Amino acid sequence: MNKKNYTMMCDFYELTMLNGYFESGVGDQICYFDVFFRTIPDEGGFAIFAGLKQIIEYVERLNFAEEDITFLRSKKIFSEKFLSYLKNFKFQGDIYAIPEGTPIFPNEPVITIRGKALEVQFMETYILSEFNHQSLIATKANRIVRAAGQVGVSEFGARRAHGADAAIYGARAAYIGGCTGTSCTMAGQMFDFPVVGTMAHSWVQMFKSEYAAFKKYCEIYPTSAILLVDTFNVVKSGVPNAIKAFDEVLKPRGLRPVGIRLDSGDIAYLSKKARQLLDEAGYEDCKIFASNSLDEHIIRDILFQGAKIDSFGVGERLITSKSNPVFDGVYKLVAIEHQGTIIPKIKISENIGKITTPHYKKLVRLYDRENNKAIADYICLHDEVIDPTQPLELFDPLSTWKRKTIIDFVVKELQVPIFKKGVLVYTSPTLSEMRTYCSEQVNTLWDEVTRFESPHRYYVDLSEKLWAIKDEMLKK
Amino acid sequence: MNKKNYTMMCDFYELTMLNGYFESGVGDQICYFDVFFRTIPDEGGFAIFAGLKQIIEYVERLNFAEEDITFLRSKKIFSEKFLSYLKNFKFQGDIYAIPEGTPIFPNEPVITIRGKALEVQFMETYILSEFNHQSLIATKANRIVRAAGQVGVSEFGARRAHGADAAIYGARAAYIGGCTGTSCTMAGQMFDFPVVGTMAHSWVQMFKSEYAAFKKYCEIYPTSAILLVDTFNVVKSGVPNAIKAFDEVLKPRGLRPVGIRLDSGDIAYLSKKARQLLDEAGYEDCKIFASNSLDEHIIRDILFQGAKIDSFGVGERLITSKSNPVFDGVYKLVAIEHQGTIIPKIKISENIGKITTPHYKKLVRLYDRENNKAIADYICLHDEVIDPTQPLELFDPLSTWKRKTIIDFVVKELQVPIFKKGVLVYTSPTLSEMRTYCSEQVNTLWDEVTRFESPHRYYVDLSEKLWAIKDEMLKK
Repeated sequence: MNKKNYTMMCDFYELTMLNGYFESGVGDQICYFDVFFRTIPDEGGFAIFAGLKQIIEYVERLNFAEEDITFLRSKKIFSEKFLSYLKNFKFQGDIYAIPEGTPIFPNEPVITIRGKALEVQFMETYILSEFNHQSLIATKANRIVRAAGQVGVSEFGARRAHGADAAIYGARAAYIGGCTGTSCTMAGQMFDFPVVGTMAHSWVQMFKSEYAAFKKYCEIYPTSAILLVDTFNVVKSGVPNAIKAFDEVLKPRGLRPVGIRLDSGDIAYLSKKARQLLDEAGYEDCKIFASNSLDEHIIRDILFQGAKIDSFGVGERLITSKSNPVFDGVYKLVAIEHQGTIIPKIKISENIGKITTPHYKKLVRLYDRENNKAIADYICLHDEVIDPTQPLELFDPLSTWKRKTIIDFVVKELQVPIFKKGVLVYTSPTLSEMRTYCSEQVNTLWDEVTRFESPHRYYVDLSEKLWAIKDEMLKK
Repeated sequence: MNKKNYTMMCDFYELTMLNGYFESGVGDQICYFDVFFRTIPDEGGFAIFAGLKQIIEYVERLNFAEEDITFLRSKKIFSEKFLSYLKNFKFQGDIYAIPEGTPIFPNEPVITIRGKALEVQFMETYILSEFNHQSLIATKANRIVRAAGQVGVSEFGARRAHGADAAIYGARAAYIGGCTGTSCTMAGQMFDFPVVGTMAHSWVQMFKSEYAAFKKYCEIYPTSAILLVDTFNVVKSGVPNAIKAFDEVLKPRGLRPVGIRLDSGDIAYLSKKARQLLDEAGYEDCKIFASNSLDEHIIRDILFQGAKIDSFGVGERLITSKSNPVFDGVYKLVAIEHQGTIIPKIKISENIGKITTPHYKKLVRLYDRENNKAIADYICLHDEVIDPTQPLELFDPLSTWKRKTIIDFVVKELQVPIFKKGVLVYTSPTLSEMRTYCSEQVNTLWDEVTRFESPHRYYVDLSEKLWAIKDEMLKK
């Protein structure tokens, strides 16, 4: 019931182009499209890829319903022949992609789609919206989680997300990026990962006094209550009332309190004050949760100032990636097939950054055999073979005089087959496996790359052969 | 099939609080919650409300499915009695709201929800996510549309939205805010408003030459083709090839070309160059469409520089409200009923801006009878009557010495009944009606309020009675 068909979630020009391909006889032309991005959000050193599972589901459900055909017919620009083609549409091409949770870098093919022009052109819009959204949130979550270090981070942003689905899939992406859980019940239910929660101010307001509200909550949730202590005044009222409730409800039953939550004011100052009060009352094990407009910078800052926080809840600045809410993924034609030969295609642009890397390619990550650290990503022609027993010379595709020869490396192909001739050949890992994989892969990056401010630019290099093809096409 | 049930799209703490209300016997307590926001995005002078229709649909579809109950049971903190209550849940309360498309201001109740604690607490998350998302995009769209003046603005951002639904509902909100159409086919299909499109670079790349691509497109779409002229070089290649295609395909058939599109480079410069080339070729009526990272500032700037643009397509900066991607709407308990009496409730906070205005209220907009301009919004107790034949003294709730007496005004109650005892009593206008209404209502605002930079703060004042109640509660 909740499985939506997003076939019509495409820019209208995709459909007019499709009809155009159909009418001009190039619809059966085999095309290769790359999905890649250009800029790392927040001027970071890398991004995290997420959203593949939803792209797979989209492709599997592709279907133009009768009402869609009727709608398109009403536009009076599509031929009836084309509309009957759409009615029977089924994707029969190939898709390759990097697994979710992998660190990704600008201008490398994250997803590659091969199929007839008629099949693959219109998938652009949905695939990009999913790629861009989830990669954006996974990347931001990973920044925040790294800033928090040993302190866990929960995703609390549903109400400030760009609608319900942005909340749900954003929570999913945030978990892949390293969050420990979400406040969004539906996300936890759909994707089987931890759902967490405390209480809202309205609970406190519903009772005669803050103390009465706390007491009741401890009675109902003796082993899980986390009391929100900032409805009136944290130090004078909230924490003392929480302690009183712990003393009177939990202590007689031999139970220890779980925690309190701070949601306003100066978190660094208040957490230290609250810690002191709790410790004095004998509740050294009572945890302090903090929320209120947090992000990686504030978290780093208040931890640096010695804030006594055991867990962060991060809302709007995570779920919208507020400081950088756009992930600039694109979907570009890189090759076509003509009589069995793959012909590279390029898009030139007045903006140099918008020039594409042509051809059907292979993307590998090269790891140092000694310490397992990622040295560089290397893009070559789809059929090039890299021999890890031989030295490999890398060079910067923009500044080709910058060269470096590496030895003793491990080659890992990043893209894996997802669809082959329209058949799904990939089994998505569980969300928890993706999260672990993400963390492991981020650990293969040098500190220089994971730094928040002015990180080192990770190498994404082209093979000599690929570079020569691109260079020649540019000169033409 | 595409109608999703979002009952479980709530923060988990809503459900633990619900169970707590149930267990502690306050679940039947009648509560009043206000939805309002605190900060106008982009430091603007007003926001535009959107999203009500989706909130209505959410309320109508509320239903805990068997699988939801099973999921909640697995958490082992909810009583069976509570779970059977949820199984039969149906909203039976009242909802009042301002119509979509209305300019709204900080701290005034846009939506008011009255019902049993058990009914109304958990609706917070979904209602806010919809209110925040669509109001954010409608507000941004309205800024961009006002910057473009007589030049139309289409919403082109689907691929950069925060997922497919953010694209669809964002397109809806953008249309309410004043856009002339969207590129998102599914949005146009769902909400019946104009869907527009040109062509992508991949169309050009699919053919042997740019000219061949243009020629073919003109042949297929002789009366609607808009040619994308920046794949290689706008001035040297794109526009000359477009003119050649117009000359060879359209002219012999006595047809005039629709337009060309610029998507990169300096739009002001290129549009003037393109205009000159088109005019010289006798195509003075061929329109120039422009896209490429536009927003209200760039649009104002390039129009100021004399750019020759007939229509803008705005993408990522609109659909994510990039410069300010968070709308900070909240859902706060403002009153409860006790033995038939309404008892106001307040939330104090260490952050003064987070203090709420208590009580069940009425919100009116006061218009100058002479020129129909909005003078101020006025919040009073739900049963206060304002006599427009008598002078009314307004005062600033923060600086109470600032007073102003108005006469000759028209009073318009802003909230209208949406649900009464759980029954929908409201018929949503069409999207096109909302868009017209929005434009008319924005026109009732003084220029000082609609200014982009440092606008005048519009008055949102409290009645003497309401202010006295708030003041007394704060002193306590």
